[in-house]
Amino acid sequence: MIVSALLTSVGINSALCLSFLVLYSILKKQPAYYGVYIPRLVAEGKTKQRDDFNLERLIPSPNWVKKAWMLSEEELLSSSGLDAVVFMRIVTFSFKVLLFAGVIGIFVLLPVNCSGDQLEDVDLVNISNNSLDVFTISNVKDGSHWLWIHFSAVYLITAYICCLLYYEYKYISSRRIEYFCSSKPLFHQFTILVRAIPASAGGSISDSVEHFFTEYHPSTYLSHTVVRRTSKLRGLINDAKTMYGRLGHLQSNLTQIQPNRGSCFGLFRRKDDLVDRYERRLGDIEQRLRLEQSEVSLAGKEVPAAFVSFKSRYGAAIAMHMQQSDNPIHWVTERAPEPHDVYWPFFSSTFMQRWISKLGVAVACFLLTILFFIPVLVVQGLTNLNQLQTRFPFLKGFLTITFISQIITGYLPSLILQSFLKMVPPVMEYLSSIQGYISLSEIRKSACFKVLWFTIWNIFFASVFSGTALFQLSMVFEPKTIPRRLAVAVPAQASFFIAYVVTSGWTSSLSELINLFPLIRSLVTKPFSGNSDDEQEVPSISYHSDIPRTLFFVLLGVTYFFLAPLILPFLLVHFSLEYIVYRNQFINVYAPKYETAGRFWPIAHSCIIFSLVLMHAIAVGIFTLKKLPLASSLLVPLPILTLLFNEYCRKRFLPNFSAYSAETLIKKDRKDENDPAMAEFLDNLVTAYSDPALMPVSFTANSDSLSRPLMSPED
Amino acid sequence: MIVSALLTSVGINSALCLSFLVLYSILKKQPAYYGVYIPRLVAEGKTKQRDDFNLERLIPSPNWVKKAWMLSEEELLSSSGLDAVVFMRIVTFSFKVLLFAGVIGIFVLLPVNCSGDQLEDVDLVNISNNSLDVFTISNVKDGSHWLWIHFSAVYLITAYICCLLYYEYKYISSRRIEYFCSSKPLFHQFTILVRAIPASAGGSISDSVEHFFTEYHPSTYLSHTVVRRTSKLRGLINDAKTMYGRLGHLQSNLTQIQPNRGSCFGLFRRKDDLVDRYERRLGDIEQRLRLEQSEVSLAGKEVPAAFVSFKSRYGAAIAMHMQQSDNPIHWVTERAPEPHDVYWPFFSSTFMQRWISKLGVAVACFLLTILFFIPVLVVQGLTNLNQLQTRFPFLKGFLTITFISQIITGYLPSLILQSFLKMVPPVMEYLSSIQGYISLSEIRKSACFKVLWFTIWNIFFASVFSGTALFQLSMVFEPKTIPRRLAVAVPAQASFFIAYVVTSGWTSSLSELINLFPLIRSLVTKPFSGNSDDEQEVPSISYHSDIPRTLFFVLLGVTYFFLAPLILPFLLVHFSLEYIVYRNQFINVYAPKYETAGRFWPIAHSCIIFSLVLMHAIAVGIFTLKKLPLASSLLVPLPILTLLFNEYCRKRFLPNFSAYSAETLIKKDRKDENDPAMAEFLDNLVTAYSDPALMPVSFTANSDSLSRPLMSPED
Repeated sequence: MIVSALLTSVGINSALCLSFLVLYSILKKQPAYYGVYIPRLVAEGKTKQRDDFNLERLIPSPNWVKKAWMLSEEELLSSSGLDAVVFMRIVTFSFKVLLFAGVIGIFVLLPVNCSGDQLEDVDLVNISNNSLDVFTISNVKDGSHWLWIHFSAVYLITAYICCLLYYEYKYISSRRIEYFCSSKPLFHQFTILVRAIPASAGGSISDSVEHFFTEYHPSTYLSHTVVRRTSKLRGLINDAKTMYGRLGHLQSNLTQIQPNRGSCFGLFRRKDDLVDRYERRLGDIEQRLRLEQSEVSLAGKEVPAAFVSFKSRYGAAIAMHMQQSDNPIHWVTERAPEPHDVYWPFFSSTFMQRWISKLGVAVACFLLTILFFIPVLVVQGLTNLNQLQTRFPFLKGFLTITFISQIITGYLPSLILQSFLKMVPPVMEYLSSIQGYISLSEIRKSACFKVLWFTIWNIFFASVFSGTALFQLSMVFEPKTIPRRLAVAVPAQASFFIAYVVTSGWTSSLSELINLFPLIRSLVTKPFSGNSDDEQEVPSISYHSDIPRTLFFVLLGVTYFFLAPLILPFLLVHFSLEYIVYRNQFINVYAPKYETAGRFWPIAHSCIIFSLVLMHAIAVGIFTLKKLPLASSLLVPLPILTLLFNEYCRKRFLPNFSAYSAETLIKKDRKDENDPAMAEFLDNLVTAYSDPALMPVSFTANSDSLSRPLMSPED
Repeated sequence: MIVSALLTSVGINSALCLSFLVLYSILKKQPAYYGVYIPRLVAEGKTKQRDDFNLERLIPSPNWVKKAWMLSEEELLSSSGLDAVVFMRIVTFSFKVLLFAGVIGIFVLLPVNCSGDQLEDVDLVNISNNSLDVFTISNVKDGSHWLWIHFSAVYLITAYICCLLYYEYKYISSRRIEYFCSSKPLFHQFTILVRAIPASAGGSISDSVEHFFTEYHPSTYLSHTVVRRTSKLRGLINDAKTMYGRLGHLQSNLTQIQPNRGSCFGLFRRKDDLVDRYERRLGDIEQRLRLEQSEVSLAGKEVPAAFVSFKSRYGAAIAMHMQQSDNPIHWVTERAPEPHDVYWPFFSSTFMQRWISKLGVAVACFLLTILFFIPVLVVQGLTNLNQLQTRFPFLKGFLTITFISQIITGYLPSLILQSFLKMVPPVMEYLSSIQGYISLSEIRKSACFKVLWFTIWNIFFASVFSGTALFQLSMVFEPKTIPRRLAVAVPAQASFFIAYVVTSGWTSSLSELINLFPLIRSLVTKPFSGNSDDEQEVPSISYHSDIPRTLFFVLLGVTYFFLAPLILPFLLVHFSLEYIVYRNQFINVYAPKYETAGRFWPIAHSCIIFSLVLMHAIAVGIFTLKKLPLASSLLVPLPILTLLFNEYCRKRFLPNFSAYSAETLIKKDRKDENDPAMAEFLDNLVTAYSDPALMPVSFTANSDSLSRPLMSPED
């Protein structure tokens, strides 16, 4: 790509950004779009439904930027939980890293690169026709002593990032403990999940659990809830809900039609019949539902898994940490999620089931990665216009138009890639859900990890090597050649990734701000349903797609920092946008659905360590190619030290992210001992973990009044 | 190597074996060698010191073989502990594996190999001049359908070994739990070791421990013993012991001299002076020792580590399994060893110290592996006589004598290798000891693992590739080429390894039986010290050298089973010998020094899994070389399935080898609750873990009476 193509891309995107920002400023103030832009405030009743029109509503104002900027960490913590704080800290962390890299890159490395004369076609007068390669390390002469500056920069940035990582890990780890200490008693703190419960001869699973825990944990055991197979029941409830929804819709239509068009009596009659029929069918389903519920409550439908609650947090922790039975794959214990976080479908329970599904999911992820290669290859084809012209000669006339060719090379590839990538997070979430996790938060966390590696592999490596998947895999079997191969391929893709940051990065932040999909949905559905606003749920942020994207841009920044520092200013713009946009979204749009208390941070940490090591590998290769073997050899200790640092962090901080210490738990338990509210809390705990599908439901009773069901089962 | 060279080697070794067996039968019955051959029985007072000579003592008898054969597992368990049982089970397991392999190899594969005609110089009439390659897979024609027999054999043996492994793991795991349940209360069951104790401002470590455990484990905490820096003290005690020994020797000489030679009065006088001087110096040392002891007892010399004892096994287990402090690298807990098993020197305590020493030891092992290469290369040179002749022309006349050349190629190489290998276990034991382990058993276990991989790498891979160490390392970086390279190199070394089994294997069992080194020591020292028998300690078996050797022979058997089945009969002879010899040694020689309760088995398990995967890699390579690519591809699932099986075993059985379950611990605790002896036991527990160097010592008091010190500090 040449400079002018990049400028085109930047121009288009800046214009898009600006117009999006203006559009947002205006749309946000329209009460019709409150459901899209401030659903959280609506749900909390913090907005006044002023329907009176005034001019102010049409003038864009930067007020929301100020509000988002002023939000303090404590406010964010209290309103959106620790996960939101950690997410924002990942963004600011990335910004800090890239700012430091940017200062070195732009003021030190870029001049060095430009002053080189390795590339012959440099034309400093007419710079816009230059290839972007002039700004990269490729322009530095082979064996030049200037390369030692790049060498020092690599050491410097590694040291800086490691320091930052250490303090960040420490801070988040202490924050996590503080958060736990200041939390009010929560059900999941007192509960563990026990799986693979061996059935005692004759008795039910419930008896078995009761007997085991009264026998071995008599002083702390409180109660238990056995999990039951409720997939059929859940299907029936969904049927009932759909039917109820249809019925409600029909009846509201009727009430609208009745006064307006008394003439169409036939139509009205037919609709009335329909209502009767629907009501009857709803009644049928409900009856079947109750039958099924009572059937499920019998012992036969028990899954060999149970939520076991204890009288103290420490008691629960002891039962969780100790191997309970002589057979380690029986009575397998793990932390319980909050009751509303439990993912009831796919409740696999035995050890072998979970093991096999894990293997299956691993294979599925592998296949997905390989199949995804096809769109990536097509996209890569677009950046090589010449190839495209030789393959499809009829496009030749079209492609020679400068503007079109610049759009195609600068803009289209990353847009296509982006739209394909949109499909990945839901797929990965589905794969994680069948892997045996029992909570939404765990599923999302696992999906976050999967999406991250998928992104790195399929965007970074696939774009860099642009070979077949099998070709890439072959690299794994010849690790010695990796640095050299990377050194050849990575700098060549600098311009692609700059364009990627500008298009995908900037646009993604702004499409997040403008809430593109909910907006479209609202535009499409609004005309058909009047009161959809009330039913709309407050969305929760999907960390499993947003964190990987953020981290991928850090990876790009870190790996390209010394190769093509020109990428850094664009990344800084991206992260500034992201900072403001997400803070705004946390205030207005997203409400937390679950709380992992910062357990996404270790994923970010390991991704940044991976970026560093990848950068080192590329640097080793580059210095070898640039005929500075001494620098290559001197770089070898750096990845080793980085990995040792990572190992230290794993030992020093990671344990705090999977469990709390005895010290903390006992202190917290003692504080609660004298709390009179604890007795009531423990009473509630006994029934907290019952499957919502087993709750009594009643649709028919209120189908006439058109209010929502009294006790609506959650999805 | 040709068949006749092999036969020479087998001949020599069979003769050696027979003579060793006869020699042993005779020597064992001589009271002078009781200290070498039946030290255990002597120590237990089970032997009658009959000094009357009779003819029977000079006639070899196979009585001991019968005794060793008849020993039941229960007897072995009660006399030598579970470790001995597990060791014998490893031997019988190996025998079972090789017997199955041998039957298939000799009766199915060997005829197929022989009937092939790939090698042209086959001369079935004069078979003794044939190369051994005739019996290997190399002789099967490329692309021949007979190779499918080898293919099936690979699948069959893998299935067989995996089944056997599963049942063995299951058996030993249940044995381990049974052993625990039937044990009487032991100090280490109630105790944990806490390291990296943070010093509270002003207070001592002891206060800190007291405060922490009374605060967080009030109901179960019993007592603690802080570890102190006693290296100087230990030096003084050793000095005192040496001095005391010298003094004793001198005084006993005096008493012998006095009545016999009254004439040499001058000499006697001088000796008397010497005794006085020694006594004074011993007194000095003792005084310094007491001073040092009282100094060490002060707070200043405390190491931030302590043995903390609890009132119940379950209490100790809870404290061990839970992360105690918010900072996971403080208050690090681990199982405590038995008091007599504690390795007091090198008591590293902080997290960083241990981490760094671990890294240092890893580097040292790596360097040792590379340096060891030199003798291996020399040995490999010997098997290529032609090379030797061209390098050292003056040897030419000597080397052309058939018998000598056959000894050199068939016998010498493995003998040299063997003597170098003898040095490895002590070195590895030393390395493990500075790695931060706190018990002899852990050190030995870690050394066992190190020696095993050292053996596999330096004997198997070095012999097979006979290139430089760096060349070998390069293979790690190109994993794709491994099967092909193995397939080329491994069959070529078949004859070397057959010779290795015959010489090293057979001889090692018999030198174990004849107790070569203790015998030589006894022969050398006996004339100088009359009463050395009494002081002699009963030796303990060094599992860290014997288990790796056994496992290495299994690795040879498994990898060569389908390549050169001729190796199997020799291995079977080896394991039969080993079976009898070690059972005999357990009865007569070795007394258990520590008890890991079968924790050596997981090492054996993983080594056998490694052997299987290595065998699969070789098979994949062989079938590719032999132009049967379909067989290669069909073999690929086999290592994957094997590794999955291994993973399952790790999940199913391994946890039981690091800790006991809550179920077991609580049951055992309840059984003890009503035992009146428990109160006394807990009283003893309070002082059980004090450093023997801090025990009161008194040499001078009894230096006159020449009895041993009242309270002798252990080494």
